[in-house]
Amino acid sequence: MVDYVVYGRGCFDQLDEIIAPHRKNEAPMIFLLDHFFEHNKVMKSRIPLRDNDMLIVADVSHEPKTSYVDDIAEELKTKYGFVSGIIGIGGGSTMDLAKAVSIMMTNPGNAQDYQGWDLVTHPAVYKAGVPTLSGTGAEVSRTTVLTGPTRKLGMNSDFTPFDQIVLDPALTQNAPKNQRFYTGMDCFIHCVESLEGTYINEFSRSYGEKAQQLCEEVFLHKSDWTDESDEQLMMASYAGGMSIAYSQVGVAHAVSYGLGYLLGTKHGIGNCIVFNHLEEFYPTGVATFHKMVEKNNIHIPVGITGGLTDDQFDTMINVSLGMAPLWENALGKDWQSIMTRERLRALYKRL
Amino acid sequence: MVDYVVYGRGCFDQLDEIIAPHRKNEAPMIFLLDHFFEHNKVMKSRIPLRDNDMLIVADVSHEPKTSYVDDIAEELKTKYGFVSGIIGIGGGSTMDLAKAVSIMMTNPGNAQDYQGWDLVTHPAVYKAGVPTLSGTGAEVSRTTVLTGPTRKLGMNSDFTPFDQIVLDPALTQNAPKNQRFYTGMDCFIHCVESLEGTYINEFSRSYGEKAQQLCEEVFLHKSDWTDESDEQLMMASYAGGMSIAYSQVGVAHAVSYGLGYLLGTKHGIGNCIVFNHLEEFYPTGVATFHKMVEKNNIHIPVGITGGLTDDQFDTMINVSLGMAPLWENALGKDWQSIMTRERLRALYKRL
Repeated sequence: MVDYVVYGRGCFDQLDEIIAPHRKNEAPMIFLLDHFFEHNKVMKSRIPLRDNDMLIVADVSHEPKTSYVDDIAEELKTKYGFVSGIIGIGGGSTMDLAKAVSIMMTNPGNAQDYQGWDLVTHPAVYKAGVPTLSGTGAEVSRTTVLTGPTRKLGMNSDFTPFDQIVLDPALTQNAPKNQRFYTGMDCFIHCVESLEGTYINEFSRSYGEKAQQLCEEVFLHKSDWTDESDEQLMMASYAGGMSIAYSQVGVAHAVSYGLGYLLGTKHGIGNCIVFNHLEEFYPTGVATFHKMVEKNNIHIPVGITGGLTDDQFDTMINVSLGMAPLWENALGKDWQSIMTRERLRALYKRL
Repeated sequence: MVDYVVYGRGCFDQLDEIIAPHRKNEAPMIFLLDHFFEHNKVMKSRIPLRDNDMLIVADVSHEPKTSYVDDIAEELKTKYGFVSGIIGIGGGSTMDLAKAVSIMMTNPGNAQDYQGWDLVTHPAVYKAGVPTLSGTGAEVSRTTVLTGPTRKLGMNSDFTPFDQIVLDPALTQNAPKNQRFYTGMDCFIHCVESLEGTYINEFSRSYGEKAQQLCEEVFLHKSDWTDESDEQLMMASYAGGMSIAYSQVGVAHAVSYGLGYLLGTKHGIGNCIVFNHLEEFYPTGVATFHKMVEKNNIHIPVGITGGLTDDQFDTMINVSLGMAPLWENALGKDWQSIMTRERLRALYKRL
């Protein structure tokens, strides 16, 4: 689990004080800032840079690739040898990038070597996360989703979670409306997949139910977006992340990974595109999702797989069926006889 | 926060594997077992004793005293010099005892020196908690409540939380009905005090609402006690503990501490005795509490302060009014003009 959690409106301004005890002699703190804030002078002025600290604007136009993680880690090792810590400030991709870079500062080889479960052997350098977008749960998760040369898979390990997270709901208030919705739906979908899955237990259920209730409060029952909406969605993201940490996601994520791998479809919108068509698996959840889409006047793309070749469908099917734990959670131990390649192909064609 | 949380029915049997990586050379693991299990051969046989490990039956007939903590730590230091870790198995008092002993294995002086906020300076030895009773939240809290020579106050510090907790709802299934109720109500009261307090924020609210809902489910809406009840109450305890970790408790705890200090009234039942009379502060919560008492056919003692002297009332009032953060959370910054000594005396007389 994350060791330290600070929560509160305005707590971002405590970041300097929070990270101070983790500064080691001359070694710098490295701030990875989501490129969304590249030209935001106010945000940049609030980052507590000291001495030889470095601010890196993280290019997250695409979700993090293992090669990008390696490039940043290599640059830092060449320049400084050792760093005090990595502080990620941004959306889910920036969170994942910060976690992965901090692991690669102390582990040999390349990031792709650690895609999988419990392959990381050395503790990472100190790492802190400051989310500026709510929903992914990346701030609490035990993984960091990366696209490598052969697969899209996280570094799942005990050394992956942040040492510290700083949850300041004020940081999310200027998120673009569509992006906020897609990422919020990532959380909602986490909850449905966790609560309807075969891996469910009372720990995950408590978190999942609370997160789902908060998502519905924010996207369905409120007429306007208020400060409270930012606060509730930030807690929904946290609780949704905790819920899947102790269970697993399901069909939407398994199918969405295929889209992400082949087409580069980003995680939030990809989940929405898939979940939109999953009535047969999650009837209640999908019905609620459709209401939220309508109420918030959001456009969910359709027809994105039109024109793809059979080989391309096969690639997506291979990536998706490779996510065995997700399918088993969703459909039970007998999932392979339920989700055949042909049924999955038909599903991809409907997207 | 607690670093590692394992949850699941039967997970107690993973304890050997869980603590194995924390064994240091020849240094033993020390198991502190609640005296409730003193004659329970099955429970004792499941404790993964190896080599020179030691099992100590913890006498928690009274809530832990600083002198008891010192005695155990001294005994262990004399016998072993260094231990690999302290594993507490039992109710809230055993949890607190295990946390306190693990701190005193590495910090000089006496336990009473550390009653307060952030006075502990050295990390404790490895410590793990296995609750066998749900409600106190001691398994996740940043404190360990101790009665010292001059006060009842916890060691609140970043070094106090467990490194690992093992949440196995099967361990709570044989708890005595009355004890289970009193301790469950400790959780319910945490939620009311947190949710109705001035320190409330969305983080605490999310946890507090979920914990309160689970308590009501278990004690009000279910007709029988089932496995699910144990599972839900264990999660309620966890979530209730998280809720107060990010806010504060209130009137019931402040008043109950006075009873505990003077009369040795145990925490769970003490909270019930006090909360029973707090309609003026928490009308909805107390009404629900009364319904739960009735439905579960529980006797809440009354008249326990009859016959006490004025000096004794003064002692309780002094202890209680010393808990400034609790009163401020409950009544606001102006609490001293609201809760006068005379009003508090009248309240104590009603108990």
